[in-house]
Amino acid sequence: MKETILRPGIDRRTVLSTLALFPALSAPALSASASAQTASSVTLPSWNEGSAKQAILDFVRDTTDRSSPKFVPPEERIATFDQDGTLWVEHPIYSQMVYCLDRVPVLAAQKPELKEVEPFKTVLAGNREAIAELSMRDFEKIALATLTGMTTEESEADGKKWLASAKDPRWKRSYTELIYQPMLEVMTYLRANGFKTYIVTGLGQDFVRLYSQRVYGIPPEQVIGSALAVKYDYGKDGAPILVNEPKLMLNDNAAGKPEGIHLMIGRRPNASFGNSTGDQQMLEYTGAGDGARLSMLVLHDDGIREYAYGPAQGLPDTKIGAITPTLYAEAKEKNWIIISMKNDWKKIFSFE
Amino acid sequence: MKETILRPGIDRRTVLSTLALFPALSAPALSASASAQTASSVTLPSWNEGSAKQAILDFVRDTTDRSSPKFVPPEERIATFDQDGTLWVEHPIYSQMVYCLDRVPVLAAQKPELKEVEPFKTVLAGNREAIAELSMRDFEKIALATLTGMTTEESEADGKKWLASAKDPRWKRSYTELIYQPMLEVMTYLRANGFKTYIVTGLGQDFVRLYSQRVYGIPPEQVIGSALAVKYDYGKDGAPILVNEPKLMLNDNAAGKPEGIHLMIGRRPNASFGNSTGDQQMLEYTGAGDGARLSMLVLHDDGIREYAYGPAQGLPDTKIGAITPTLYAEAKEKNWIIISMKNDWKKIFSFE
Repeated sequence: MKETILRPGIDRRTVLSTLALFPALSAPALSASASAQTASSVTLPSWNEGSAKQAILDFVRDTTDRSSPKFVPPEERIATFDQDGTLWVEHPIYSQMVYCLDRVPVLAAQKPELKEVEPFKTVLAGNREAIAELSMRDFEKIALATLTGMTTEESEADGKKWLASAKDPRWKRSYTELIYQPMLEVMTYLRANGFKTYIVTGLGQDFVRLYSQRVYGIPPEQVIGSALAVKYDYGKDGAPILVNEPKLMLNDNAAGKPEGIHLMIGRRPNASFGNSTGDQQMLEYTGAGDGARLSMLVLHDDGIREYAYGPAQGLPDTKIGAITPTLYAEAKEKNWIIISMKNDWKKIFSFE
Repeated sequence: MKETILRPGIDRRTVLSTLALFPALSAPALSASASAQTASSVTLPSWNEGSAKQAILDFVRDTTDRSSPKFVPPEERIATFDQDGTLWVEHPIYSQMVYCLDRVPVLAAQKPELKEVEPFKTVLAGNREAIAELSMRDFEKIALATLTGMTTEESEADGKKWLASAKDPRWKRSYTELIYQPMLEVMTYLRANGFKTYIVTGLGQDFVRLYSQRVYGIPPEQVIGSALAVKYDYGKDGAPILVNEPKLMLNDNAAGKPEGIHLMIGRRPNASFGNSTGDQQMLEYTGAGDGARLSMLVLHDDGIREYAYGPAQGLPDTKIGAITPTLYAEAKEKNWIIISMKNDWKKIFSFE
C-alpha cells in the first residue's frame, strides 16, 4: 500500500478511481495532470518543481515498479546520506567541533598541563578568529583528547546534555533544529518506498547516534561514521564497561566512506547524497552499480536563507567541505544531480 | 497483531474468544491450560518443554507486554547470536576454515613459493591429522593469505561458488543446511515480536553475509564479525573497487564482540546467544543492562544427533569453542540459561 500511495507514476485510471472514493476531493482535480501535480507536491512539499526533484521521483519509480527493468527488491534498497552540509548546517563550523571546543575547558581542569599546549592554549584563550584559523589536524587533536578517557555511557550522557542546551549563534536554536526540511522529506519518501536510510558521516558516529532516531527517524545502527576504538573492561563494581580509546578505528571520510559502507552494510547503496569532496568516493561507488542510480550533491548557493560557499560556483572557499571545480566536473561527466538550495528548495528549515 | 498472535502470555478470555472464531479448533482445547500448551508448541515447535524454552517465552512476554515494567519499545529490541556452534555445526572444524583450506591450492598455484612454507606445506600435503593439529595462529595465517588480494566482489563470487558445492563429510549436505532448527525458530519468534536479530561471529563477516539472508532471514547489514580492512581503489576500467587487505580491522571474538556491537549497532542487546568462551563478554555485556535480559549458552551434549564436547560437562575438550568450567560457573552465578541440545531440542536439523 505504501508503495502505491507514494509512488509518483500513478496512472490516470488509478487516480480517477481513487478520487471516486473521495467525492469532496474530485472537483478541483478533474484532469490527470492536475492530480499528478498534487501527488508530487504532497510527496516532496518543500521542493520546487525541477530536474532535482524529478530525478528523485524518477529514481523511486524505476526502483519500486515491479515491471521496471531497474526494479530493486525491497530488502536490497539502500540510501546513504552525508550529514554535515547535506542534512544540516555545517557552516561556519561543524556542530560536533563546537561540542569538542566546549569540552576543552573541562579537560583542562582535569589536566592543567594542557593549558600551555597548542592547540588547547588557543581554544582556552577564547579568541574566535584564532580558533577559526586552526587546522584540521588541530581539530583532530582536540577531538581525540576531548572524546576519549570516558566510558561510552559517560560520553553519551555528556553529549546529550550538551545537545539539550547548546544553540547555534545565528538562529538561536538547537543544532538539531537546523535540519534541512527538504532532505528530511527525501528520507521519509525513500523509507516509505522500502529504502533503508543510512547516515554516512566523516564526523563521529557515536555523536550522531545520540539524536539520529529523534531527528531523522534513523536508528543508531544505521549511522556510520568515524569511530574511536573502544575497549571492553570492567568498572569498579565489576560491571562491564566500554571505554573510548584515543585511537581512530574508522576514518569515515572520502575513500573511508565506501570502506565504512562495506564494513557496516556489506553492499552498495542505490542512492547517495553528499555536498563535498568528502563524499566523492561514496557517490562514485554508488553510481558505479547496475540499474537505477541516484547520486546527488547539495550546493550551498543561498547566502540569504543559509550560506553561500564553494569554489565551483565562484563562491567563497571555506575550510569545511564544498563542491570544488574538480568535483563539479566529475558530477557533470557522471550525471550526478546538483541540488541548488536557492532554486530547488521552497523552504530550508521546518521553522521558516 | 504479530505481538498478540505470538506472545506467550495469552489470557484465558482471549484464548476462548479467539477459539470462538474457529469452532473446529475449540473442541480439543476446552481448558485454558491445554490451549496455552498448544500456543506454546506452535511458537517453538522443535523445543521440548522445560526451563530453557520457558526462559525464552518469559523474556518475550516481559519485553513486549506494554503493561510490564520490563517493556522495551519495539525500535530498541536487539538480539545477538553467535554463529558457529550456536546456529550451526562447528565441529570438527569451522566451515569457513574448510573454505580457506580449500583455497590454499588455488593460492599456491599463483604463488608457488608458498609450497615450502608452513602452514601451507602441511595443508597442501593433505594429511588430515596434521591439519587438525594446526594452531589457531596457523589458521589465522591461512585465512589472511587466502581471503586477501581479491576485490570484495571477486571474493563474494568465489565464496558463493564454494558454498554451492561444498558438503559436510558426515551429513553429505551443504553446510548451510546444518542450521539448528530450534535456533531458527527462536530468531523467527523474536523477529515476529519486534526484535532485530543480529549475527555476531568471531569468524569473517563477509563470508556469513553471503548466505545470511537466505539461510537465517538476516540481511548482510545485521551480520557483525571479524573484518579485514578494505581499500577503496579504481580498477583497470576506472570503475571503483574495494580490495581486501591483509590486515585484520575488527577481531570480533571474546572482548571484540561487545566492541563490535558498539561499533556496528551502538547499543546494548537485550538478548544474546552463544556457546563458548568467545561469547563470554557478549553475554556479560548483554546481561548487565537494565530490565529483562536473556543470556543463553548452547551446550553440545548430544553425541548421537550432533556432537558431544566441552570440558564443563566432562566431555572431550576440542580446539573449537565450548563451555569451560569457568564459563559454566559464571553462567550459574549470573543466571544465564544453558540449552541442552540433548534434552531441550526435539529435533536439531530441519531435515531430520
